Amino acid sequence: MRMATSEVRFVPVYSKIFDLTKCLKTILPNIQFQEVSPGASVEDINILKQAEIIVADNNLLGMQLYNLPAAKWVQGTFAGVETIVQHYVVSKPKPSFIITRFSNYFFGSAMGEYVVANIVNHERNLMAVYENQQSSLWKIDGKISNHRTIADLTIGILGAGTIGRDIAKLLKTLHACVWGLVCTVPSEDNKSPYIDEYRLHSDLPDLLHNCDYIISVLPSTPGTTGLLNEDMLKHCAQKQPVFINIGRGTVIKEKDLVNALSRGWLSAAILDVFETEPLPVSSVLWTMPQVKITPHVSGCSRPQDIAMFFKENLIRFQSNKPLESVLDLDKGY
Amino acid sequence: MRMATSEVRFVPVYSKIFDLTKCLKTILPNIQFQEVSPGASVEDINILKQAEIIVADNNLLGMQLYNLPAAKWVQGTFAGVETIVQHYVVSKPKPSFIITRFSNYFFGSAMGEYVVANIVNHERNLMAVYENQQSSLWKIDGKISNHRTIADLTIGILGAGTIGRDIAKLLKTLHACVWGLVCTVPSEDNKSPYIDEYRLHSDLPDLLHNCDYIISVLPSTPGTTGLLNEDMLKHCAQKQPVFINIGRGTVIKEKDLVNALSRGWLSAAILDVFETEPLPVSSVLWTMPQVKITPHVSGCSRPQDIAMFFKENLIRFQSNKPLESVLDLDKGY
Repeated sequence: MRMATSEVRFVPVYSKIFDLTKCLKTILPNIQFQEVSPGASVEDINILKQAEIIVADNNLLGMQLYNLPAAKWVQGTFAGVETIVQHYVVSKPKPSFIITRFSNYFFGSAMGEYVVANIVNHERNLMAVYENQQSSLWKIDGKISNHRTIADLTIGILGAGTIGRDIAKLLKTLHACVWGLVCTVPSEDNKSPYIDEYRLHSDLPDLLHNCDYIISVLPSTPGTTGLLNEDMLKHCAQKQPVFINIGRGTVIKEKDLVNALSRGWLSAAILDVFETEPLPVSSVLWTMPQVKITPHVSGCSRPQDIAMFFKENLIRFQSNKPLESVLDLDKGY
Repeated sequence: MRMATSEVRFVPVYSKIFDLTKCLKTILPNIQFQEVSPGASVEDINILKQAEIIVADNNLLGMQLYNLPAAKWVQGTFAGVETIVQHYVVSKPKPSFIITRFSNYFFGSAMGEYVVANIVNHERNLMAVYENQQSSLWKIDGKISNHRTIADLTIGILGAGTIGRDIAKLLKTLHACVWGLVCTVPSEDNKSPYIDEYRLHSDLPDLLHNCDYIISVLPSTPGTTGLLNEDMLKHCAQKQPVFINIGRGTVIKEKDLVNALSRGWLSAAILDVFETEPLPVSSVLWTMPQVKITPHVSGCSRPQDIAMFFKENLIRFQSNKPLESVLDLDKGY
């Protein structure tokens, strides 16, 4: 059991997220929030070492995982926890504090609206339309007027968890045919009404063979790393789908992705996540005409949402209730 | 009662829609479809005059409304019928043939996906992201990472008919707050679960006062023409909404629209329809930085969909059943 903490007065904010400290101060004016610079000096690290409660970016927290002796609870600012888990060493004494990841009720719909916008931009060539405007050109040729709508598409979602199911619901509202890749096919009672076809990882080739779009929302785990390798991507050769990655870059090696695009197994790619982020300037992906790159923004950790999530968890913490979105280091999620 | 027509052998296609004749031939290979040039010569007009069944663009049909003595049924190719109705003269003998407009089960979702894409492009500044890619630039500043999602928005839909309700459902799936402008507030039993607030035309100022986005799907009728005039648009001054027009251009005079944008009553406009189409090169709208222009493509009449709709109506026609989407010239819709 955790001891109830009736008053929290001081919380360091160890984050690169712009305006986060400001949002925290606005929403919790009685707490003293102090920014700790990510390029942490000895002084800054000492502030962290003495704190009981900390708000920290997951990657920064990962690097200090064994260096927070006073901590009782650290609230992470991202949904993805692989940058914490990779620093966890089973043989060492386990960190005694609770870690909560940031989880947003609206993540699924934020990522869903990103998916719809990017599909529509691609299918209708909206970029060309906006360019035509620069020349006062009213032009309806080609895909601008004669295009596929989402209702015409079969869309496979790799990772049909909470976020994946939200995206499935949105695409089904637009009358797409939706396939979902899962670890276990749910019982009839638990099947989503928005997923037409379930496939296990062992049946991934069948999914790749049938879908016009492949959307990965997979997290980075040993089971997903390199899942879309060269042998697997060959199964895209018939439908030549568009690949959208809003999960983690580790699911596909850059060389395998570039190869699949060059061979035409994938007709295009819309990429929000990468093996290395920021994507290095030297990457060939930047200049491939069939590739659209966005800088890991499909479902953003917005400062006001993180502040609100922290506040709600703080109320739970202070009344000794279980916190929301607790990370289990042994399970890795 | 209409006489059953057991065999239809010849149908002229009086349309500017690319590939329509080809699609009709594919789907109905036993019928001879003949393209009739829109810049109709005497010969072409004679073909139309002798035909019992015609497929025609609504505007072209309008001009020949009293010039089709043999016609029993004309299938229009657009959803909007104002270009037919404007040629109807009550004092003349009424055309004896049936007119059906093209109506697509998926129009609402096609227009809905257009709406979502354009909102997301605007809110997240996706155009800037794509431009950054040209310079291999990983940049997450400003709206690119800290933006409103659709869940943050209150969206007013002017015209909550079939299409408007489909768009409401989509936006509600994305957790928007949705207001609908209607002629009659439905009874509790008939209210859409996707519309949070209903407003009558007399309460339009209240809707404009409360919404972050105003989406017009209104048709062109005497009641909607000039509805968004200068006095009305003043009610946008507080929220400074984005205006999306996917209905008809007649709902707002270009000078009133430009004025509202210049004064900041509207913060931006995404326009798919205009008073005059194609939008004249001389229009100031082309070059206003807060305006995005698309060439009347939000819900396209795609040739394959029109061909399928015609085929289904033809089956009804041949078995003497009521046709789908019959135009009532007296009602004007």
